[in-house]
Amino acid sequence: MTDRTHQGGRRGITAAAVPDLVARARDGDARSVGRLVSLVEDESPVLRDVMAALTPYAGRARIVGLTGAPGVGKSTSTNALVGELRRRDLRVAVLAVDPSSPFSGGALLGDRIRMSDHVLDPGVFIRSMAARGHLGGLSWAAPQALRVLDAAGYDVVLVETVGVGQSEVEVAGLADSTVVLLAPGMGDGIQAAKAGILEIGDVYVVNKADREGADKVRRDLRSMLRLAERAEGAWKPPVLKTAASTGEGVAEVVDALEEHHAFLLESGELERRRVRRSREEIEAIALTALRTRWASVGSGDRLDELAAAVVAGESDPYTAADALLA
Amino acid sequence: MTDRTHQGGRRGITAAAVPDLVARARDGDARSVGRLVSLVEDESPVLRDVMAALTPYAGRARIVGLTGAPGVGKSTSTNALVGELRRRDLRVAVLAVDPSSPFSGGALLGDRIRMSDHVLDPGVFIRSMAARGHLGGLSWAAPQALRVLDAAGYDVVLVETVGVGQSEVEVAGLADSTVVLLAPGMGDGIQAAKAGILEIGDVYVVNKADREGADKVRRDLRSMLRLAERAEGAWKPPVLKTAASTGEGVAEVVDALEEHHAFLLESGELERRRVRRSREEIEAIALTALRTRWASVGSGDRLDELAAAVVAGESDPYTAADALLA
Repeated sequence: MTDRTHQGGRRGITAAAVPDLVARARDGDARSVGRLVSLVEDESPVLRDVMAALTPYAGRARIVGLTGAPGVGKSTSTNALVGELRRRDLRVAVLAVDPSSPFSGGALLGDRIRMSDHVLDPGVFIRSMAARGHLGGLSWAAPQALRVLDAAGYDVVLVETVGVGQSEVEVAGLADSTVVLLAPGMGDGIQAAKAGILEIGDVYVVNKADREGADKVRRDLRSMLRLAERAEGAWKPPVLKTAASTGEGVAEVVDALEEHHAFLLESGELERRRVRRSREEIEAIALTALRTRWASVGSGDRLDELAAAVVAGESDPYTAADALLA
Repeated sequence: MTDRTHQGGRRGITAAAVPDLVARARDGDARSVGRLVSLVEDESPVLRDVMAALTPYAGRARIVGLTGAPGVGKSTSTNALVGELRRRDLRVAVLAVDPSSPFSGGALLGDRIRMSDHVLDPGVFIRSMAARGHLGGLSWAAPQALRVLDAAGYDVVLVETVGVGQSEVEVAGLADSTVVLLAPGMGDGIQAAKAGILEIGDVYVVNKADREGADKVRRDLRSMLRLAERAEGAWKPPVLKTAASTGEGVAEVVDALEEHHAFLLESGELERRRVRRSREEIEAIALTALRTRWASVGSGDRLDELAAAVVAGESDPYTAADALLA
């Protein structure tokens, strides 16, 4: 009972309780997995113990990113992909990251409604997570949540995000393979190119294939992809069509993901992507630690003092940055 | 002649030449202002000398942010606002930040076409800048470019950006006052709320007021803003209507900006916003310095070594971050 407030958090646990929680998560207990993700969300002080305990089990899951503009049918597609992966006997975790929402995750009711097909399946774990409001943002929280789901033994972890601006690029950075969803009637090709989606997709899917204009979107996208320069021996992203609501074409998407995974393994690109990802994760943790340190040096807030001096015209930001690092 | 390559950059200059360049920029020489902004873009090694030289002249300009989704008429609105500010005898600089473009700024031809009304006016400086691809990103480059334009003596600096996801929030963070542009037919209110525009605007403008649906957008926005919680004595953002292509309503937008500026001064909020901005600028410079340091410690790349160990399951990211900071 006292444990609830012991660490100052509603889900606070002691470092001593971490190994047991990890063991239960590894045994397939969804509640324990959820608790571990909550520790990430809450920026729990025992997180470093959690990450250390997960180390031996890391790196086995395939991380698949799924992104697309609002309205292309992301939830329906995720739902259909999970169904197909389950038919292939793979355990699946879904992490829905909303980069624009300040609300905390664990939005269980919403998650259950949107993924109602799979809510009773113990081979499927579903969780949404808010990125904003965290000290370290998406780049800090998401990789650690993925680390939890990976170590918990899911074969595939789907990271789903709304594709708006920078966030889809960030999410592509988290994944081994990224699926970019499009749909007819969602804006022209120039916008697509501008938003940078031509650089991030490993598999492109034109959803709502039964609607007018789907073939044109596919054709346009293919020509744009042909124009993009690619190195010799590089992966050529396929452009597929689905109607996620009926399941049409979804098996082909999973096939393409299998092919891409094989390509990543053979080419050594999987290792390169994962090292790059790990770099960013380490950096984000280091920067968050530094920020905490900077905010608490001396009597008041050191950074505030320096900033006030710059605003008053007594200093410049480089001199202030030197002082901060000294 | 040798100067061109001396610092390894096409616009490389020596630290000794900085005071003269700053003096010319202060005298109203647009070419010198442009060169100083290029030094920011190029991440010139003399930037810290530039910033030190600008210190005595900082903090006089009013920084106005302008954001909105593609298609709401940002360029036309900027053009119209510049015209109105000039009629009030204010010198104006425009910094157009494109968060999704990897292309370098100084896109003079494009800038001239889009702002052709003002291109021969010495009281107007126009410049676009790319944010992606910079080591420190938008948060590193944009504040330093604004510092240049501020110190160069412009009364108002307009920062214009495409409102996509996170970038509009970032740009709001750079400005004293933020104008959020909307237009009829650009998507429903829920999307607006999701993208977080309800939190960032000091003045809302429904452009294309002559089109069908403008009054509905205005009404919907007003009700949404009424629902947003505001502290006692807080600024209540007005919702105005314009037809930027004819100039209708633009004077009222500038009036609202004047009122907001007076509010910022009286309430002490201007100082608070500027200190917060300065904090972020200092932090971005410090982090960029650290990243450079981390990439060059030891024989190889220290961060790469640590990341490889994490991927191999020999370490966890927290232990690696500790090693990085040690």
